[in-house]
Amino acid sequence: MALHPDRLLPIDPGARAIARRLYQSVAKLPLLSPHGHTDPRWYAEDAPFSDPATLFVQPDHYIFRMLYSQGVALEALGIPRRDGGAVETDTRAIWRIFAQHYTLFRGTPTRLWFEQSLADLFGIEERLTAQTADRLYDRIAECLPRPEFRPRALYERFNLEAIATTDSPLSDLAGHATVRRSGWSGRVLPAYRPDFTVDPEREGFRGNVERLTALAGTPTNWAGYLEAHRIRRAFFKGLGATSTDHGHPTARTADLPLAEASSLFDTVMGSAASPEQAELFRAQMLTEMARMSTEDGLVMQLHPGSFRNHNPALFARFGTDMGADIPMATDYVRALKPLLDAVGNDPRLTLVLFTLDETSYGRELAPLAGHYSCLRLGPPWWFFDSPDGMKRFRELTTETAGFANTVGFNDDTRAYLSIPARHDMARRVDCAFLANLVADHRLDEDEAHEVAADLAYNLAKRTYKL
Amino acid sequence: MALHPDRLLPIDPGARAIARRLYQSVAKLPLLSPHGHTDPRWYAEDAPFSDPATLFVQPDHYIFRMLYSQGVALEALGIPRRDGGAVETDTRAIWRIFAQHYTLFRGTPTRLWFEQSLADLFGIEERLTAQTADRLYDRIAECLPRPEFRPRALYERFNLEAIATTDSPLSDLAGHATVRRSGWSGRVLPAYRPDFTVDPEREGFRGNVERLTALAGTPTNWAGYLEAHRIRRAFFKGLGATSTDHGHPTARTADLPLAEASSLFDTVMGSAASPEQAELFRAQMLTEMARMSTEDGLVMQLHPGSFRNHNPALFARFGTDMGADIPMATDYVRALKPLLDAVGNDPRLTLVLFTLDETSYGRELAPLAGHYSCLRLGPPWWFFDSPDGMKRFRELTTETAGFANTVGFNDDTRAYLSIPARHDMARRVDCAFLANLVADHRLDEDEAHEVAADLAYNLAKRTYKL
Amino acid sequence: MALHPDRLLPIDPGARAIARRLYQSVAKLPLLSPHGHTDPRWYAEDAPFSDPATLFVQPDHYIFRMLYSQGVALEALGIPRRDGGAVETDTRAIWRIFAQHYTLFRGTPTRLWFEQSLADLFGIEERLTAQTADRLYDRIAECLPRPEFRPRALYERFNLEAIATTDSPLSDLAGHATVRRSGWSGRVLPAYRPDFTVDPEREGFRGNVERLTALAGTPTNWAGYLEAHRIRRAFFKGLGATSTDHGHPTARTADLPLAEASSLFDTVMGSAASPEQAELFRAQMLTEMARMSTEDGLVMQLHPGSFRNHNPALFARFGTDMGADIPMATDYVRALKPLLDAVGNDPRLTLVLFTLDETSYGRELAPLAGHYSCLRLGPPWWFFDSPDGMKRFRELTTETAGFANTVGFNDDTRAYLSIPARHDMARRVDCAFLANLVADHRLDEDEAHEVAADLAYNLAKRTYKL
Repeated sequence: MALHPDRLLPIDPGARAIARRLYQSVAKLPLLSPHGHTDPRWYAEDAPFSDPATLFVQPDHYIFRMLYSQGVALEALGIPRRDGGAVETDTRAIWRIFAQHYTLFRGTPTRLWFEQSLADLFGIEERLTAQTADRLYDRIAECLPRPEFRPRALYERFNLEAIATTDSPLSDLAGHATVRRSGWSGRVLPAYRPDFTVDPEREGFRGNVERLTALAGTPTNWAGYLEAHRIRRAFFKGLGATSTDHGHPTARTADLPLAEASSLFDTVMGSAASPEQAELFRAQMLTEMARMSTEDGLVMQLHPGSFRNHNPALFARFGTDMGADIPMATDYVRALKPLLDAVGNDPRLTLVLFTLDETSYGRELAPLAGHYSCLRLGPPWWFFDSPDGMKRFRELTTETAGFANTVGFNDDTRAYLSIPARHDMARRVDCAFLANLVADHRLDEDEAHEVAADLAYNLAKRTYKL
Repeated sequence: MALHPDRLLPIDPGARAIARRLYQSVAKLPLLSPHGHTDPRWYAEDAPFSDPATLFVQPDHYIFRMLYSQGVALEALGIPRRDGGAVETDTRAIWRIFAQHYTLFRGTPTRLWFEQSLADLFGIEERLTAQTADRLYDRIAECLPRPEFRPRALYERFNLEAIATTDSPLSDLAGHATVRRSGWSGRVLPAYRPDFTVDPEREGFRGNVERLTALAGTPTNWAGYLEAHRIRRAFFKGLGATSTDHGHPTARTADLPLAEASSLFDTVMGSAASPEQAELFRAQMLTEMARMSTEDGLVMQLHPGSFRNHNPALFARFGTDMGADIPMATDYVRALKPLLDAVGNDPRLTLVLFTLDETSYGRELAPLAGHYSCLRLGPPWWFFDSPDGMKRFRELTTETAGFANTVGFNDDTRAYLSIPARHDMARRVDCAFLANLVADHRLDEDEAHEVAADLAYNLAKRTYKL
Repeated sequence: MALHPDRLLPIDPGARAIARRLYQSVAKLPLLSPHGHTDPRWYAEDAPFSDPATLFVQPDHYIFRMLYSQGVALEALGIPRRDGGAVETDTRAIWRIFAQHYTLFRGTPTRLWFEQSLADLFGIEERLTAQTADRLYDRIAECLPRPEFRPRALYERFNLEAIATTDSPLSDLAGHATVRRSGWSGRVLPAYRPDFTVDPEREGFRGNVERLTALAGTPTNWAGYLEAHRIRRAFFKGLGATSTDHGHPTARTADLPLAEASSLFDTVMGSAASPEQAELFRAQMLTEMARMSTEDGLVMQLHPGSFRNHNPALFARFGTDMGADIPMATDYVRALKPLLDAVGNDPRLTLVLFTLDETSYGRELAPLAGHYSCLRLGPPWWFFDSPDGMKRFRELTTETAGFANTVGFNDDTRAYLSIPARHDMARRVDCAFLANLVADHRLDEDEAHEVAADLAYNLAKRTYKL
């Protein structure tokens, strides 16, 4: 299983040689992680991780959704039930199930991330099988308590230069404050993710809005609600935030007259908002957030197009983020127009667009980003954060939008140990793409070196103001 | 024209060598054909095929639609007219037209299937042209009466292990019964295709439903109608069926309360069903069929997304299946939800999804199959049953759904002689895909050998319970 | 920067050798440009081009949209403002801005076209940078006044055999008449582009219709309006036109009864047409134009799917064609049905379909063109007129529609100097595609040579009746 040094580079020997040179020049650049889901308490408390299953299997919906798709019950993986019902607690048993089904991951990025983590962090070069499961478990379990496997040590070993978390507007950002006070040199930034306070269809929306305005000391009306967001954004900014993040079902935006927006707020805060009114409120809030970004300079990120919790029985049993979120066809051209009409030519705005609908890359996103100065294309996201997914992203966006309208790589993960492997994959795939352009003489090699560094490091630094 | 032994394998010499090894290990595995359209009478009667044109041109809408697209009248190809009007009856003249236009098939799978059939079965290694047309015609015509070219001999020569046909619920399955009684070792299975009795917009729907309930001895009401399907499914199962097949305009499903479903049945059996009511009835029936599959274990196949008979003038003249069925954009995420909500977590259900909309591979189908334990992805279908189509299928589904959520190859054809060539194409393209994963170090070669055998044989055997 | 002779050919040495042979056999074939946007006055007046910026930067929305996307104001590029406000007039300053931002075009076709123009026409083999900007400017500026850089000399140097322009039905085609009278051997053809007189939502629609009927001497009613189109089409045909061109928001067609169509004409000529009525009128006019094509033999081209002028602030300031036209998802299967039902089986009709939605290639366009004898697929258009775009077009259409249902290359440009580079790119990419088919043994090399010549020359000649 020894990881091949040329993995993911082009197969053709000539192109591979070019790619190797490009990759060598960026492989050691620091990692910027401007968008992810690690827990700020890890950096604040710096406690050791507990065991291999808790570390690798349970937090990773890429892993357990694949097992579920082949008939493994989530209970057997120790995923907690909402009703408190019994689930497997023997982490070694959970690890063994993972090992028995490990062949399912052939051809998937999960496998590559996992094996690179094993090799680089634990020196494991043996394939996970039912036979080797216990040996690998023991090896990892033996390492985890050591100082060099604690979150801060790993941050340094990973060569991270900055990492953003994703945080509720209601959060006190205590972990971030602790890190700042600690004197540790690591840079852990919050990101403002207001969805729970913006989406009338989320459970607890009204209570969240009331907590938001209470926290900000503003009245619970439209003006007070907007002001509360401004105040909380400033609080986040004060603790280092450079960005906001918005996960909506669609990319729809709206720019209603003040009176209508205000009245819509009252409606969604009442009990009788229709799905269309909820959608319109989310749409309006995207434009409001874009306007706030022109004022406070926070980079805005939009991630639309996921049908959340598609499996209601699973949702009832285990809650959200169980691998049952499914992409949908997503329109951007009409959806973004109200926002773009309002602030699309404002030089202070940066709006990073992500998609789960690859058909939008060439048809909508690259042409939009190749025109509007505020728009940038986020890297391939979620299901497409993979070698072929990254390759398609470049093939479908570069000819129209170039490289400069993209933003480098986001690891987007809560699987902390996989972060270096994810960045490494992106660097390899981008270098492979560039090497092919050099090999068929669309790009000169000196240019490719510059672009490789941009994609690995500079674009993220510039776009996210890090 | 000699068929190159490395055809469809990767161009890069290193990857090609790997692919060759993989292909050698699966090339001779038996063929499983769990989904196709050959005529059961062929196996029952074992009569010789009549002539080259009747064998290759007339039953193959891939061939005559291409000729039609370049101005060849279907009458000139001997396609029977519904009004009984005169059409060409000289099969040699028809063959000559095919030969004159044979260059149209450059770059198409039709050409590869055809030439492999000629070479492997008739030893023809000469390209079809206007000049060679007669010689090839004579060569084939001379072979066809021989014993080794009869359907059962071909079944054995093809190394078929099982082949499914597609049959109406109203069929007496006489051909299948004859085969069973004959003592011949070939395994020819029916598949339950109830569309004519499920789709209120098909000609003769009401009559078909009445014949169905009459056959089953049940009343013609909602309960009786469902019971009739159960009874007929059991009859099919008794003659070896392991699957059902459903060709719907969309993937829409529904799960109506009993009273509504029952009343909808009455409406569609009356004279005034609207298009929306017809669609809702089809939708409801998919869920009913899925429920029956949980009971009787028949694997359910769904093929949505074809706009049938797009050319009304052609339809009026020649009827269905004239090459004028055109794919449409197809939603699965919302469409399948009612069915999945009802039985999507039932371990007894297997639902194989096909598509004519390749945008759904990565965006919808792989995420769905990578989560729901009942879902499997059928192979690339119809227009996409081709080298590049198969390659895109793997590229767009593997990273999310892996290999184990796919079901191997279906030849889906009524062109009996092309069956080995179709399976061979799939094996080559899958081995090429796997070889590239090995060559860029995403997969080890020992694993690729296991996967190649799964894709060529094991997955079809397991999924279709053969 | 020396252009590599093998650029855009396959990377694999074996496939590259085949591609080189194919390319050599078509590289010098004459250019047919049946669809483009050069100015007929250029050929009529044969005046020298003024300066590098006016020649390369200002007319090319591919260039200035990319600069705009990275914050360059269009005023700084000398794009004229509608309000007559001040813009940069120093063409050297404009050129320098282009040079400073030239790295944005890495990986884009613009870069390849531009560099090939510089090399082939001006002997420039130095990369454009801030440092070299002035030297390149001077070199080009020094060439432009010479006789061999005048439009007619370039036409001959480019080895053009025929070039079509795009003209309003209201045009007197004076430039075309002048060229004809001049005795010059160049073949410059008008194309009938009636959009301004067909689309009720365009500014000035009613006035345009009135001018049209006045020009034709027909009454301004439905019958007179249609007759006026017939008369103007005949006038265009008299000056060499072989085609019409239709740029609609969607591909929707209609075939209304006469009384409804006539009444719809009155409605859209009144003041109260709704968007739906405007769309229906455009839809009806596509069918009318197709009917006229069956009568006069003009080849019909349809280009749907662009959301024009998406950025209203930019539109207000600079007008149309400012790089803010964005593709949209486009349906063909349902949209074209009324037209196809009316004339789709008429052997006199040729309808060339273009798309900005690549998902339609395999799903809709190739199946439609692989059946209907009137349909042909136009080359990859606009954003997809690029190496990867052309490759995807062949990969997604060939297996279903073959090569003969495509029409060769259209350069579609107003950037006159880029025409040879655009055709050269298409020839290279098509030869690369064919070489890969030869290398993996799907096509024999002798066949590939024939197909290469078809794609480079014969198909355009035949389809456009040149």
